[in-house]
Order: sequence, then C-alpha cells, then structure tokens
Amino acid sequence: MKKNALSVTREDDFAGWYQQVISEADLAEESGVRGCMVMRPWGYGIWERVQYLMDQRIKASGHENCYFPLFIPLSYFAKEAEHVDGFAKEMAVVTHHRLMKDGDGGLIVDPDAKLEEPLVVRPTSETVIGTAFARWVQSWRDLPVMINQWANVVRWEMRTRMFLRTSEFLWQEGHTVHATKEEAMVETLDILELYRSFSENVLAMPVVAGEKPENERFPGADATYSIEAMMQDGKALQAGTSHFLGQTFSKAQNIRFQDKEGEFQFAYTTSWGTSTRLIGGVIMTHGDDDGLRVPPLIAPHQVVIIPLLRDKPEDEEVLQYCKALTREIAQGRALDENIRVKLDITGAKPQTKRWSWVKKGAPLILEIGPRDVAEGKVAMLRRDALYKENGKLDNHFLTKEEFVPTIPDLLKDIQDRLHGEAKTRLDANITRGITDFAGLEKFYKENKKYPGWLEVQWCRATGDALEQIDQRLKKLKLTIRNVPQNAAPVDGPCIFTGEPAVERILIGKSY
Amino acid sequence: MKKNALSVTREDDFAGWYQQVISEADLAEESGVRGCMVMRPWGYGIWERVQYLMDQRIKASGHENCYFPLFIPLSYFAKEAEHVDGFAKEMAVVTHHRLMKDGDGGLIVDPDAKLEEPLVVRPTSETVIGTAFARWVQSWRDLPVMINQWANVVRWEMRTRMFLRTSEFLWQEGHTVHATKEEAMVETLDILELYRSFSENVLAMPVVAGEKPENERFPGADATYSIEAMMQDGKALQAGTSHFLGQTFSKAQNIRFQDKEGEFQFAYTTSWGTSTRLIGGVIMTHGDDDGLRVPPLIAPHQVVIIPLLRDKPEDEEVLQYCKALTREIAQGRALDENIRVKLDITGAKPQTKRWSWVKKGAPLILEIGPRDVAEGKVAMLRRDALYKENGKLDNHFLTKEEFVPTIPDLLKDIQDRLHGEAKTRLDANITRGITDFAGLEKFYKENKKYPGWLEVQWCRATGDALEQIDQRLKKLKLTIRNVPQNAAPVDGPCIFTGEPAVERILIGKSY
Repeated sequence: MKKNALSVTREDDFAGWYQQVISEADLAEESGVRGCMVMRPWGYGIWERVQYLMDQRIKASGHENCYFPLFIPLSYFAKEAEHVDGFAKEMAVVTHHRLMKDGDGGLIVDPDAKLEEPLVVRPTSETVIGTAFARWVQSWRDLPVMINQWANVVRWEMRTRMFLRTSEFLWQEGHTVHATKEEAMVETLDILELYRSFSENVLAMPVVAGEKPENERFPGADATYSIEAMMQDGKALQAGTSHFLGQTFSKAQNIRFQDKEGEFQFAYTTSWGTSTRLIGGVIMTHGDDDGLRVPPLIAPHQVVIIPLLRDKPEDEEVLQYCKALTREIAQGRALDENIRVKLDITGAKPQTKRWSWVKKGAPLILEIGPRDVAEGKVAMLRRDALYKENGKLDNHFLTKEEFVPTIPDLLKDIQDRLHGEAKTRLDANITRGITDFAGLEKFYKENKKYPGWLEVQWCRATGDALEQIDQRLKKLKLTIRNVPQNAAPVDGPCIFTGEPAVERILIGKSY
Repeated sequence: MKKNALSVTREDDFAGWYQQVISEADLAEESGVRGCMVMRPWGYGIWERVQYLMDQRIKASGHENCYFPLFIPLSYFAKEAEHVDGFAKEMAVVTHHRLMKDGDGGLIVDPDAKLEEPLVVRPTSETVIGTAFARWVQSWRDLPVMINQWANVVRWEMRTRMFLRTSEFLWQEGHTVHATKEEAMVETLDILELYRSFSENVLAMPVVAGEKPENERFPGADATYSIEAMMQDGKALQAGTSHFLGQTFSKAQNIRFQDKEGEFQFAYTTSWGTSTRLIGGVIMTHGDDDGLRVPPLIAPHQVVIIPLLRDKPEDEEVLQYCKALTREIAQGRALDENIRVKLDITGAKPQTKRWSWVKKGAPLILEIGPRDVAEGKVAMLRRDALYKENGKLDNHFLTKEEFVPTIPDLLKDIQDRLHGEAKTRLDANITRGITDFAGLEKFYKENKKYPGWLEVQWCRATGDALEQIDQRLKKLKLTIRNVPQNAAPVDGPCIFTGEPAVERILIGKSY
C-alpha cells in the first residue's frame, strides 16, 4: 500500500522533501534563469492571497501604495556608506541599453549603447524612495508620510533556494517618515506587531517577535526587529523585518522639514518588508509527507470538487450534481469571505486529481461519483487530518445537507488546527535554562539532528565583543535570532561573558 | 473670479495640460531616473482599481496568474529573429552583478563581476514564458494553457511621456497555448472583446476594436488586434493589443504536443497586454480644465468628505457628524461593490482640500460645516458637472436622508455620463466618405488643429505596397490605426491605389 504521496520524507531528507513539495504541489519551478524561479498558478495563487490580506492590513493602518522605479542610479547609493556596503556585493547592474548583431549575425550587447551612469536593479528602495521623500516633505504639515509598494527586487545571491533566497523575489516594502524619534519607533513596532499577528492569524505560522542584535541590523538601520518562525527541522526562518532607521537616511538624502517653530529638522524614517519567502515558511511549517497543507485563509481554492467521471453515460448526471454543488458552496461565506470552491474538470484521471490536490494541500477535497449522486452525498477528505489509523484515506461520507452548512466551521477548524500544531511544536522546542557556553556547546552536540532553539541570557554585547560572540556561535553554525519581546525578566550571568545579563535572546540554526 | 483649477487649458496646450493634470492630481511625478516615473497614491490607487477589475475578468475567462523572471538570457532572444529585431534597440541589459570601491573610495561597477551571459530586462515575456510552455506542454491533454502575469517591463524608449511611454511600465501580459489555429484565433478575439468591453464599461473610454495592418503587428505575430481610443485632441491611443502568434514562437521554442493520434504537432500561441498607459487614456478622455474626472468604477475614493474645520469649538461636532456619515456611506453598495468613501482629515485648509479633490477628480465631494450639521445636510459637488452657468461651484445642498440613498444612482449616472460624453465625441470625430488620397491630404490640411480620424476604404496592402502607403501617410504624421470590426461593407476604390477596396480602415494621428 502506498504510504505517502511524496517519495522523500521530512525525517529522511528535509531539504530534499522541501524541493519535492515545491515541485509536486505545483508551486514553482526552476526557470532556466540563474537563481530565478517561475511561480506556477498554485504557488502564485497563494502569494496573491498573502498579498491581498497583507495589503488590507497595511492600508487599514494608514499606509497608501505607490510605485517607484526598478532602476536606481549608482550615485544614489554613494550617499549612504553603510547601506551600500551591505548590498554592493549582490547588485545586478544595467550598463547598456541596446543589443546588436555581430559580424556573424549573432546577438551581442551594443558597445556604443553604454549608459552614462550604470543603473542598479533595486535590491531595496530606501535610496530612491528617500529621494522622493526629500521632495515631498517640506513642513511638519506633510508628516507623517506612510507609504508601501509591492514590487520585485533583485539580490545577486550566490546560493539560491526557491522561495527562501532567489535572485529576484517579490515583496512589499513599507517606508515612512516621521517628525519625531518616538513616532518613528511606534511605527516600527506597530508594523512588527502587524507582521506577528499576520503570521499567526493568517499564515497559521507562530513566530517570535523581537529585536535583532546589532550585527544583524539592516545596513544603515539604528534598530532592526524581526519575526522568527520555527521550521519543522527546528531551524529559524526570519519571516519579516521592521527597521527603525533613525536619521541615517534623512541626513544622507536631506529629508528635512520646518517644524511648528519654523526650524529645519531632519526627519526620522522607517522601512519594513515581507516577501515570497513567507511561502517557504508556510511550506516548512505546514507541509507533511504527502505534500503541502495550505491554511484555508490563504488557499486559492478552499474546497475542491472532483467529479468521478468514467466515460460512461452517468457522467453527465455526476457533472450536473457537481456544478450545482459548486454553485451552492460558492454562495456561502467562511472566515469573513466568500468560500473559494473549484470544480476540477481537467482531463486527468480522478485518482490523479485526488493525489494532485492532496499534494497541493487544498483544505477540503470532495470526490463525487454516481453512487454519491444517487444518495445525495459527498465523500470528503480533510487535508489537515488525512489518514485513518489503518493507513487508508480518510473519506468521510456525508449528505450534502450535512456537509454544506458545516464548511465555515471546518475551514476555521483547519486554520486553527494548523496553527495549534505549529504552536505546540514551537513551544516544545525552545530550550531554556542553559547558563554557560560549555552547556550550550554540549546541548548542540547532543541534539545535532533537531536542536530547536535555545533561549539564554546575555549582556547585550555590541561592536567587537559581539563580533567575538558571533564567531563563537558560527563555529556551531548558530546565530542569535532576536531578543524576544515578551521574555521573562533576566536573572543571572551572560552565557558568553559571565557578566550580569541584561536580556534574553534566542539562538538557533537558521535559513 | 478663478475660472479653472488648472492654469493651462486643453484648448491652448493639450500636451502641457496633460502634464499639469498628472502633477496637480497627484498621479505621478518624474523620479530622477531616466524615463521612469513615481506613481503617487492617487495614480497608483487608480491603477490598483484597473488591475483588480481587469484581473477578475481575466480569471473569469479561464486564465490563471503566474510569475516569470524579470531577466531573460540574451540567447533566448536569438531564437526568433523577427521578435528580437523588434525589441533589440530598446533593451536594458544587465552585464555585471557587483559594485566595488575604486581607489578614491568612489563607487564603481566591479569589472571582475561580469556575467557570463548578459541578461535582458524583459521588454515582454514571450521568450521566457515560451521556454516554460515547452516544458509544460507534452500532450493534447495539457492544452490549452492559459496564463497571465502582472509585471513590470522595460523598453528603453528615447522619448518618454508619463503613463504613455515610460522606460519601465506596469502591465498584464497574457500568454496562451492551443492545439489548433482556430482555438488560438478564438482566444485572440475573445481577449480583444474583453479589452473592448473593459475599456467601455469600466474606464468609460469608448474604443474601436480591429486588426492592425501588417506593418504594425507585434514583432513575430501573424496578426495583431488593437483597441483604439480617441483622446480629446482627436489623436488615437492604442490602449490594448491581442496577438495571434500562429506557430512562430512554438517553432522557435519547440512548444510541441502529441495529439490524440500520437503525432507530434507544434502548438499555436497568443499573447495580449494592457498597461499603465490606460491611465494616460483615462486622463485624456475624461480630464477637463479643472483636472481629472475619474470614472466611479476606478476611483480609489468615490465619495470624499471634507469637514470644514476652523480651529473652533464646533469643530468636534462637525468631525463627529462626518465620521458618522462616513460609516453610514461605507455600508452602502454601488456598482456591485462597497462604496469607497474617504474622510479627509489631513492638515490642509478646507478650500485647499476642495480644489485638491476637484483636481484629482473624485466623483462626489462633500463639504460639511457647522450649519450643515445643524440642519442635517450635506453640500455636494458632482465632479462630472462642476459649474453652474454663472461660473460658481455647483454645490447642491441636500439632507443626509435625501443624499445617502441616492449615492448608487449618482455614481452610476456619473459613470454613464462620462462614457456618453466620450462616445459622442468619438462618433462625431470620425469622418467618412473621402475616397481619394488628394481628398485625404486636403482634409488634414484644412483640419490641422483637430482632424479626428478618417474611416476610408483600402485594398489591404501588404509588403512593399504597404510600406509605400505608410511613407505617404507618415508625411502627414498619420498612421493606419486598425480595421474596425464592425465597419460597413466596402463599396468603391482603395483610397491609396484606386483598385477595388476590400475593407475599411481608420486613419489618424496617434500617441
């Protein structure tokens, strides 16, 4: 008997399993262009849901969408040294604006069409948006400016991995300008909370929100905050970041305003982003050995109906029954939206369709054959709880009248269960109580396969001291993830220096 | 008395007026990056509405969204000669992947980071999507493939103009694969009809749909169809195109399938697109000397409420009244969606706000002062019919109870009136009945300021003969726009050759 829909299990080869989910669930594929993927309909459909629900929240919190240029003149980067140092090594640069035929009829870059100034394909847009802010902001009346853009960005990464680290990726980047330091910090933390709540409540992906250590800050930021999610292999995925930029960019780009007293002041700015990386997080949080399980809130189709057609006369009746059922379900509402239902009438065989939707992770899968039509029933699979104990697919037979009204509860229950499962895992795999570095080393050696995260106390080192700590951790392939917002009070020594600790940090392997 | 909100009129300087609308209505601005604009919130908000409503229609007609790479390896273009000839001269090319410091600490492109193969920033995606299609399509069971993507593209135009021709622009590009020529042609024309209907019914922008002459085809296409809209200066704007690509790309990229008999066949493909150019069309169709008038279906805010606050104690009461009114209106539905209402509580003065929303073209603008609160009234401006005969702003005073229930009718009426006005103008400015070229020349000389379009009969010339016709027209700054789908039967000679005509064409100046 077939045990799993995938040939690789999470236990045996997590990285191989991840790749197989992406391909078998039709999420994305290699494009043939270095480091860039093709997002296929099911993967892009999930992204559209993420985008739609995130956009609502960003707008509801007072931000407006704009669109800024893809290309940033090289000179814009020269203005802020730390920022450019952070990105210079991974920038795609446009240097020419024309192709031509060579002597043999081949196609080459026209050497006469060199740009006067090279254009960088945006790796992030602080520099070009800051230039606009300098135009927009003149008086305290113009503040705050709170904008967001949905865009593609390019970072020329050496090692790429679909959804997690691709040369080109899709994201939203928010950028705001404020009159005071306090307001800018409130915005930075409001967005951190927006990301945390979105991740928990929409993606069903529990996270820990907190501040990154100094050495992990966004290039040019005074403070960076992140949400960190725990993947099923116990590694951390940084799933969103919110940066308090202080006056770094306002001074580099001359974003100044006249205050109420007529004095010129430099403004304070923030920036923050989440990307298609979130889908990588969803895969590694909710996937199982049969493929993906998509939380109902972000599932492009929440209910999929497969008519069991067999090239027989009764097919027509089955199809009519399925069409009526599709219409009926589509009229219902669940999780505050119309239910998204799909009737799969592609040419594939029913058995193939079933496994395809299991691998894609549609929350509810219905199979309807002539007997179901005769009895007014549906055969239902719940993707979050697929197997009975005997290993057979868990098909529930319900009458239409029983099934249809319960869809909202079922979808809500699936959403909650996926979150609950992941939350239990996160909580169970944070180890506390280790107080010295030898203990930390020992723990990671003894728990190589699945160490999870450690919450320890430290002295909030900076500069060279932090650099040394970072080196010691890197030898164990570890990094400090963040300073959790709601950690218990400190009481004891710094795990690295033995000095009195000032805060708690999470340590773990990461993507 | 101030006559118009803008200092330039359409009559005096249409091009200058267009630029002023864009800037005064906060639609977009120059970015400092050559040929690229910044889309500001109101302009981008209109694009979001266009995108949302177009996306619905594209999905409803059976297409799914995907996302393909921004970068296309140069070698992909070498496969289809005609296609590359059409785009080679305007391609932005990435040649390097890193910056570095030079000896003086300046920032330069790192000469050691040259890419092995240059990457073209997509000007359109047939080549990279076709490569994916070749992987996806194996059997007749895989067909049709019907996908769409929302993306940015880059064409290195020498002369740029905001919304109409920018180096980078936003668009949707649909790409489909079919088993037969007939199916591909049906798709091509279905999309043409989708674009026509969208333009008329959503943008309130009347268009003429039809086939482009051979010399105006998309590079590589067997046939190109367009919708052409008439701007208020009588020029034509090509507002969307749908291409029947025949087997050009399937042969170049090896998109083959096994048919039911097991034979390998090359597939037939189509592609089609609309872009942010549509917003340029909306401006030049609906703008007046006070700024833009946005059709309610694509207005980010359909009703704007301006509280007349004057730093007095009664401000609070006015604000409460406005907030309650905003909530009440937001619960209503118009044009099949929730009404989009905005309470403008920015710091600007009421008078400034009023003119700002007039220039932006919000369909309904309400001003609420203490007297209105006392009387339970609203003061309403209809943006599509702004002035009374005496030149004063046409403020209607209505009770809340009169006003709120009529919003759906008002918005529908504004949508219809804008369309009706534009349709009347289109119909009135197509001249028919000129049968020889001398007559055509004479007509354009006598109607220099506002020639509109001519509908004439011709022989459907191709190749050199068409080239000659094209040259003759270019001397008059004219082009053939398209062969209107629903033109009257032909009867008479070709206007260019005197031979018997076979179809009618539209001729005009164009953007």
